[in-house]
Amino acid sequence: MSSYNVAPLDNLIDQFERLPNIGHKSAQRLAYHILTLPESTVKEFANALINAKKSIHFCKSCCNLTDKEYCPICSNSKRDASTICVVERPRDVVAMERTQEYTGVYHVLHGAISPLMGIGPDSLCIKELLARVGNGEIKEVIMATNPTVEGEATAVYLSKLLKPLGVKVTHLAYGIPVGADLTYADEITLARALEGRTDL
Amino acid sequence: MSSYNVAPLDNLIDQFERLPNIGHKSAQRLAYHILTLPESTVKEFANALINAKKSIHFCKSCCNLTDKEYCPICSNSKRDASTICVVERPRDVVAMERTQEYTGVYHVLHGAISPLMGIGPDSLCIKELLARVGNGEIKEVIMATNPTVEGEATAVYLSKLLKPLGVKVTHLAYGIPVGADLTYADEITLARALEGRTDL
Repeated sequence: MSSYNVAPLDNLIDQFERLPNIGHKSAQRLAYHILTLPESTVKEFANALINAKKSIHFCKSCCNLTDKEYCPICSNSKRDASTICVVERPRDVVAMERTQEYTGVYHVLHGAISPLMGIGPDSLCIKELLARVGNGEIKEVIMATNPTVEGEATAVYLSKLLKPLGVKVTHLAYGIPVGADLTYADEITLARALEGRTDL
Repeated sequence: MSSYNVAPLDNLIDQFERLPNIGHKSAQRLAYHILTLPESTVKEFANALINAKKSIHFCKSCCNLTDKEYCPICSNSKRDASTICVVERPRDVVAMERTQEYTGVYHVLHGAISPLMGIGPDSLCIKELLARVGNGEIKEVIMATNPTVEGEATAVYLSKLLKPLGVKVTHLAYGIPVGADLTYADEITLARALEGRTDL
């Protein structure tokens, strides 16, 4: 940027611009907005960033995000620990929970297999899932990966690994609009998809 | 948010959601993105926020944002200090500078008069402008407030205060934006362009 701008402001604009879906104009608008806020509010924001990053890690069992050793769902004894719903992202757990229909537990892969993007099975939380299923207490694994090429491929790949372990592998029914993102599906569609799940 | 979410994450989502034009879904996406970044990158972002807020204040002369006592434009002896261009926002200075046509200095009001929004002349950097013009070294003040009801009202209000001080007060020309299609120009802009027509 040119000399009429100030370094700490340019730096802040630059930081905002690195976030996904934030262009230069939006980054400018956000940075100028920050300067209008009281210093205490800006500190709260900065602390929220650092605290979230520092305290949040993967649940030892399901790989969902948590600030404890086990996430609230895995440590809830009322949940059916013999059914695992496999999702791509932590936000998909939030979407599934909104249906209030599912009483089992989850497993978060943190992505889907995508050779084009260089994401192989080793980049995902797959060995953790196999370890959980391998201990013999799991009856059913429900694939709830996104209805995209990558999500489908991941579900098929996992079912081939899981079926020899003697576990039932099912898939969410096509109530989900194909090509959409699971996060943005409404509760009713998601609930229908859960009810009508089929063998994979 | 429900129990399956974690407090530091909820807090971060909440912080992002307070920013202008960031809804809940975008805030979620940004927060999850932050968790995928290395801790050092998150710290840089947090520091950029705090540093910008701490070190940036108004230029003693023109009220533009700066981390020094005077902004780079006011402290540049090559600029014509007898011409002041009055703008609403710091980003308008950036826009004017991009023209590379203007050699004078600026004055940033930090808003426009808007009785509906509770913004009166006292909320803006107007007394600083009057003080600058009052010292007698200013020959011309160019109004470059936005072509909105509020911007226009502010320009008229200021010209009434400035003219008695014996200074020339001008206004940016209205007309058709260069490169635009006449068909899509609104009536008011076209009427103004016609009024302000110049010899060819």
